[in-house]
Parts: sequence; C-alpha cells; structure tokens
Amino acid sequence: MRFTRGAINSTKKLLGFTTTSRNMASNKILNVENINPNVITMQYAVRGPIVIRAVQLEHELAEGAKKPFKSVIKANIGDAHAMGQKPITFIRQVLTCVTDPSLMEKGDFPSDVVERAKTILGGCGGQSVGAYSQSTGVDVIRQHVADYIEKRDGGVKSNFDNICLSGGASESIRNVLKLFINHSSPKPIGVMIPIPQYPLYSATLAEYGLGQIGYFLNEESNWSLDEKELERSLSESLKTYDTRVLCVINPGNPTGQVLSRKNIETIIKFAHKHKLFLLADEVYQDNVYAQGSEFHSFKKVVSELGDPYNKLELASFHSVSKGYMGECGLRGGYVEFLNLDPEVYVLYKKMCSAKLCSTVLGQAVIDAVVNPPKPGEPSYEQWKKERDSVLASLKERATLVEKAYGSIEGISCNPVQGAMYAFPQIHLPARAVEKARSLNQEPDFFYAMQLLEATGVCIVPGSGFGQKDGTYHFRTTILPQSDLFKDMLDRFRSFHTKFMEEYK
Amino acid sequence: MRFTRGAINSTKKLLGFTTTSRNMASNKILNVENINPNVITMQYAVRGPIVIRAVQLEHELAEGAKKPFKSVIKANIGDAHAMGQKPITFIRQVLTCVTDPSLMEKGDFPSDVVERAKTILGGCGGQSVGAYSQSTGVDVIRQHVADYIEKRDGGVKSNFDNICLSGGASESIRNVLKLFINHSSPKPIGVMIPIPQYPLYSATLAEYGLGQIGYFLNEESNWSLDEKELERSLSESLKTYDTRVLCVINPGNPTGQVLSRKNIETIIKFAHKHKLFLLADEVYQDNVYAQGSEFHSFKKVVSELGDPYNKLELASFHSVSKGYMGECGLRGGYVEFLNLDPEVYVLYKKMCSAKLCSTVLGQAVIDAVVNPPKPGEPSYEQWKKERDSVLASLKERATLVEKAYGSIEGISCNPVQGAMYAFPQIHLPARAVEKARSLNQEPDFFYAMQLLEATGVCIVPGSGFGQKDGTYHFRTTILPQSDLFKDMLDRFRSFHTKFMEEYK
Repeated sequence: MRFTRGAINSTKKLLGFTTTSRNMASNKILNVENINPNVITMQYAVRGPIVIRAVQLEHELAEGAKKPFKSVIKANIGDAHAMGQKPITFIRQVLTCVTDPSLMEKGDFPSDVVERAKTILGGCGGQSVGAYSQSTGVDVIRQHVADYIEKRDGGVKSNFDNICLSGGASESIRNVLKLFINHSSPKPIGVMIPIPQYPLYSATLAEYGLGQIGYFLNEESNWSLDEKELERSLSESLKTYDTRVLCVINPGNPTGQVLSRKNIETIIKFAHKHKLFLLADEVYQDNVYAQGSEFHSFKKVVSELGDPYNKLELASFHSVSKGYMGECGLRGGYVEFLNLDPEVYVLYKKMCSAKLCSTVLGQAVIDAVVNPPKPGEPSYEQWKKERDSVLASLKERATLVEKAYGSIEGISCNPVQGAMYAFPQIHLPARAVEKARSLNQEPDFFYAMQLLEATGVCIVPGSGFGQKDGTYHFRTTILPQSDLFKDMLDRFRSFHTKFMEEYK
Repeated sequence: MRFTRGAINSTKKLLGFTTTSRNMASNKILNVENINPNVITMQYAVRGPIVIRAVQLEHELAEGAKKPFKSVIKANIGDAHAMGQKPITFIRQVLTCVTDPSLMEKGDFPSDVVERAKTILGGCGGQSVGAYSQSTGVDVIRQHVADYIEKRDGGVKSNFDNICLSGGASESIRNVLKLFINHSSPKPIGVMIPIPQYPLYSATLAEYGLGQIGYFLNEESNWSLDEKELERSLSESLKTYDTRVLCVINPGNPTGQVLSRKNIETIIKFAHKHKLFLLADEVYQDNVYAQGSEFHSFKKVVSELGDPYNKLELASFHSVSKGYMGECGLRGGYVEFLNLDPEVYVLYKKMCSAKLCSTVLGQAVIDAVVNPPKPGEPSYEQWKKERDSVLASLKERATLVEKAYGSIEGISCNPVQGAMYAFPQIHLPARAVEKARSLNQEPDFFYAMQLLEATGVCIVPGSGFGQKDGTYHFRTTILPQSDLFKDMLDRFRSFHTKFMEEYK
C-alpha cells in the first residue's frame, strides 16, 4: 500500500497545515519529491490518521468546541497507564531509589527495594543512572534477565551475554531486522509476518526496503497458525524474494490468540526445514487469560525438541510495556539470541554501540520486572496483590470485550485468549463499502473515522494490520476500566446500529 | 574504510570468541557473508576495539589478574557521571517526584520541584510517566524547550510544534539523516561532515548507505572552518555525489573549538548558496570555556542574517547528556526544525511514530534542564551553586588538559575552547608508523592500544574521527577529576617517553 499524495494531503489537513501548493514545497531542499521514498511508503496505523484526528478532537474539546460527545476514549493503543492503570509500587520504588540514592539512607524504603537499587547502581558507571551503560545494557541486569528466563523456561539455560537490553522491545526488533537489509542482493530479502500483524513489522519492513510476506492467521479457528498456509505463503514468496526470516507474535497482536505448544512445534519445524531465522515477539507472555491456554516460549520448545531443531537461530523479545506493569513510557525491553553466529553478534553489538545505550532507568525497570520481590521479602505481599489484581482485571475485561462485541449484530469476535486486544470482524453492508471506496478510503477506515467523529471512540481499522480481502475488522484494546468501557460500549452500539441502518 | 575480516577477527578475539572456522559460521542462516553489508562497514570508535579491550582489562583486574596498573582510566567517552561528577539535585528531585508522585504529598520536596513535577505529569497520559507520550514528546515539555530556545536566542521566535524530543540527540540526528536515504537516486546522496568528526556521523552515514564527504577543519588555526575548504570539499564531492546536507558540530567534537559568529555566517551563506540542508549539532552549547569565546546558535544567526538566509532549512540538536548536567544514561535530547517543508514534517512524524516514543523520564530531564529554578525559587541557590561549580571545574580542566599535553615532547595540543575533549596531535616517529603498518594497524590505534595495555589509560585514536593523512591524534575527555587526571597524566607521560625512545 503506497502512502499516496492524497493520503499525505489528508494527513496534512488533519494536522492543520494549510500549505497545499506544490510549488512552495518543491522550493525546499528537502521535499516530498526527493525524501527517502521508504518514509513515504511506511505506515503505522496505531498512531495513524485516526489517532491524529483523535488528539485533535481532544484539543478541540479542551478549547470548548461542541461535539456530540464529551470526551475521547482511546482504545487504539496498548497503553495501560493512560487508561488509568496504577503503577506497581515496587517498580516505582526501585526507580525512585536509583534516581535519588540519598533517599535510601532515610529508611523509608523496604529493604528489598533498597537491595535491588544498590545492586543496579553497583552496575552503573560512577554508581549513577546518569552514566552511559554498555550498549548491551548493565551487566547485572542482563544477568537477572537470564535468571528470569531460565526460571520461566523450567531450567533451560540462558546466558546473560546473549541478552541485549533496549528502549522497549520495538528497538530490539528493529535492530534485528536491520541485519537482513541488503540492497545489493540479487533477489530482494523477504520477511514473513502474520496477517493480521502488529504494524511495527510492516512499517519497519517498508522503512528498511525489506519484502513483506504475509501468512494468514485462520480467523475461523481463533486465529491459529496453519502449516499449509505457511507453506503456501513461503512458496509463493520465493518467486520474488529471498525469504530469510519468519516473525511470529505470541500471544497475538492484534488477534489475541495464544499459540498451542503443538502449533509452536509446527512453526519451529517449518523454520528449520526452510532455513528461516525466527523472530519471536513474546511481549505479551504474562497476558494469558483463557482457560486451557498457556504461554510456551519458542526458546523452551526449541530446546526441548532437541537436535536438529535446537540449532535454530532465534531472537525472542520481551518488554516492560505490557504484562501487569504496563510501563510503556519508561521504555524497557530486551532481545535474547539463540544460536546466533558469533561473528554476526560482534557486528550486532558494534551496530548498537553507535546508538550509545538505552535509557538506564528503562533498564532499571527491566530489573524490577525480572527480579521481583520473593516470598518472605518485605515488598512481596503488596507486589503480589497489585500484580494479581491487574491480571485478574485484564482477564475479566478480556471476556467482557469478547462478549460485548460478539453480541452486537453485524459483528463477530473471537475469544481474547491473551495480549490486550480484540480484533472483531465487522460485516459491513455493501453500500458502506461503496461509500468508502467513493471517498478513496478503506471501508474499515471509513467506519472507524465515522465512529470517532460521532462518538469520540478511537479504534484502529483492520486495514492497518492486514486482513483477508473483503473482510473488515478493527482492533480495540481491552484496557478501558469498567465504567469507561461501559460508556465506550454504549457509544459504540448506538453508532453501529445507526451506521448499519444507514447503509443497509 | 572497510571493516575487514582481520578487523572482525581481532574484535572477536577481544571479545573472547573462539570460533574461527569459516565453515561453522557459514552454516548459519545469518552470517557475515549475507549480513547487511553496511553493518560491516560502519565504525564507532568511541566504543570500538580499544574500549572493548579496556572493559575486558577491568574484568581481568577484578578477577585478580596482574597488570602494570591497578585501574583502568576511561577518557574515551564524554560520560561525566562515570568519571565521578555528581548529579544536579534539582534534576533528580524532579525525576523522583514524577516517578513516585506520592512522595510529593509528604512535603519533603521544594515547591518549585513539586510544581515542575506536577506540570510534567499533567502532560502525561493518566498522569503517569508510564504512559506513552506522543512520538514528538510531551507537549508541555516541548513548549518549555521552545521558551528556553527563545530566551537563549534573545527573543528569536521558537514554536513548540517544530520541536521533537528524542532519546538523546543521537536519535534525532539519525532520524533526520534517515530522511535523505535514497537508494534509487541516480547519484548517491552525499553528506558533508567535518574532519575530524564525531563518529556518530560516519557510522550513521555508513549504516544508511549515504556518502561521507569530509571537509577538513584547520588545525593550524585552532580547528577553524575555512570557506575555501568547504568549497573544495563540495566541488570535489559533486563528481560522485548528489551532495545535499552539511553537518556542523559547534562547539566541536572531538576538536573542542567554538566557532566565531563570523565563521557561522560564512557557513550559513555557503549552505544557502549551494542549497544544502544544514544540521547543527549544538549539544555542547553550555560548554564554552575560553576567554572571548561565545556560543552562537545557528538558528539565531540564520534569523539575524535576514532574507534570503532566514529561509535556510535547518535542524539543530541539543542533549541532556553534556552541559553541566551530564545525564547521559537518562537519554534526553531534541531537534528543532527551521523552515522544514510541512509535508516532510508530516512524514518525519509518521516515521517517528513507528518507534512509539522516547523515554518519558528522559523527557522529564529535558524539562528540568530547560526550565531550571528561577531566582527567588527555593531550589535556585543550590542549583546555581551546583551548576556553576561543574562548569568552573570543567573550565579549569580544559586549561589543565591543554597545558599538560602541550608540554609533552612530541605532542601538540590546541586550546580547548569548549565541549569536553582535547584532540592532541602525536608526532609519531617513522619507526612507530612502520611497526603499526606491519601489524596492519593505524599508527595512532597502535599507540593507543600500547598505552592501554601498559598503563590502563583508555583514549580514542584520531583515526576513529578522521584526520589529515600523515597526522596522528587522539581524543581524550577533560572529565577525569583532578586526582584522577594527575594519575592519568603521570601514566601517560611515562608511557609516552618510553614509546618515543623505543621508536625514535
């Protein structure tokens, strides 16, 4: 999908630009005719035109504009704190102590908090979070990550040297994909991603000039991943691409499914068979709600499958932005490599070093997440209560959201087994589709924009994630707290009924 | 300069890898034969092999290894806190309050700190630094940045909408350079950078496949910038490149010069004449020490020169990592655009949105830096005392470093007018140069590595920054505190004398 001049102009209009004359723009040294063409192509719907318009509506409301609604409800992005979730006390206390170590002397903080903070500071240059860390991150935090992974995976060995900390998982994912760019390759390099996918992938592939190869998740069987579809997708891709990477998101974003262990084995065997480098986006590993669903890390399954599958080259990603902590703004994440060529790893680290280091406070959050209070430690009870309460509430909302949308005529919604999203299908009437096409808009974009303008509810159209031709979806988070969710649902229902009536 | 297999192997050796067989590596799906070739080419000397070896030596010492020195002294990187500089109390207090807002209720913090913290939180989703910000940063902080720039530039207007916050200035610089990538351009796109330069530039250009065009700073007149040299460099470049960007670093890194206002005017007129987009790296704007030297922002001079120069497209960068605060690890920086094509800006913001946002705590540091306590506010006296003390101490060390190195036989050193570095020239004996070449090393790399192994002093060879053929330099920071600096200088002198004797 190209970012057309029409799209640029409509985005400009949304942003309040008045310049429309081509002549003015082309007088500039850097203009839309000579800018990096990949920057034009790339799209990131989670913060796209609908969200830009939502922010603008918020400003208009704040300035007293009259709208058919009193507030904007942002269900577009997995941003728990923005939707009212409270931070975990232990995490913020550790952060506070490393930020102002003098506070630790006053005896106001639990001993486990102080111990964590002192350990982190001991790994920092000059005992200050204001010093650069190594580009791979503070060693003692990397070690804690390795310990955490080992425990999570029932003892499968993790070496801290294979772990690189980063400003959120996104940065690591982008860094790893960057290794595959090769403009002088005889065939363009291809990367397989699920459809629907999280648009970080499509945006990054477009920016890097890598080929996007979609494999469809099966909506009919709750967004499961089918081996035949993987084979079809790969084999078609090879006509055009040198396909070298397979990306999997588990639990799924935007689709909310949790892959079964059997499914994961299938994927690993497929990647091994076709010599694909596997990227496992596992940032929702703590967000599993459905009865019978369980998170299995790709690393663990790779290891348990044994030879030859345990030679698979794998990069797996985790983040502090999701889970029960939702510390999106603090930017902490990491990648763990398995079986990476040691020469490649040297080059990877060199590449990262030119970006100096990720935020050391973000690294400190990672530490507090992977090394939480243990039973018996003073912060344990409160930490456990807060964590369990967030996870229970998310679980409740996962069911609520599925049921609520599933009960609306013209909408079907798979169970939200995990992650933070539902991805309901809207069965749009043909006249609505025609109307959208006449406006040069994707039908679900048209629907979402109408919804926003009429109700203030901000969701992301399915076309931003990819979907089967002729189907239309939207992604909504499960994050609005109960009262807000009720309000959102009322607005949604009322809009939807009118919309379906109008275009039936 | 290619990152050769020899270089890869020696780096691998430094990192303790034992795999040397090509066959093993080439069995990997991703290996050095098919990795992104730009990742092989790029170099970042500030964290290159010498620094990797320094870290390794630290580990060896910690494990009780016997060395001719008891500690490693890292003068390789502008990392003030790592060298013992203490954080500014006001900054850390603001950070503490936004991290744990409950502490504000206890009345332990000055009212100006609390006011700043509440204002920042008011701009955050859900009043939490754990929420994502807009990709451009928290609006109220952007507004404070604009106010700061306006004040700095004597009233020249600054619009907050032209400011984007980022994780350090490096991220903004890389984002802006990314706009110029164009692999389908008939001639490769070229970017002019000073030689010597800060290797973020050479590394980023190599990574992006942009052409590096060096213009030499004049060592004989204290690293000043000569118009004739700009003209020579540009005109030669045009044979090969479509040269579209001019980068200037002021105050200079690694060279420590502060450009005169006249020099800045010359550069602006040159950029205007040749339709070059100007990148002004001004992260050392608070670090000016020399009598008679003063910082002039490019934006101010552009504005004061009036028509037609005030139409120049300019991106200028600042950071919280340098100055008096030295908060490198917290990752805060920004870019201010001037005269950017509005269509390009829409695309720039879209591009940044796929990276979500920079660390909100890093943004909070920016706020504390651009909106410091005002006279009369409770934190003012302490803040001023701390700031003045750091700047006075840096000024003292700037003189000390210049004099110390300048007084050593076989070394000449320009005055350190600003920034945090000296870039002395070493007049290496011909036999030392021969010896280095026989080892397939740059002569100043050879010198620096010998220095490190003999004394534990870690500096960066001039070849990592670029220099005129046949000249050899090194970059050292002025950051070691007095006792450490004395120690470092003793070690240096003793090594240098022996080295010069050995190779004379």
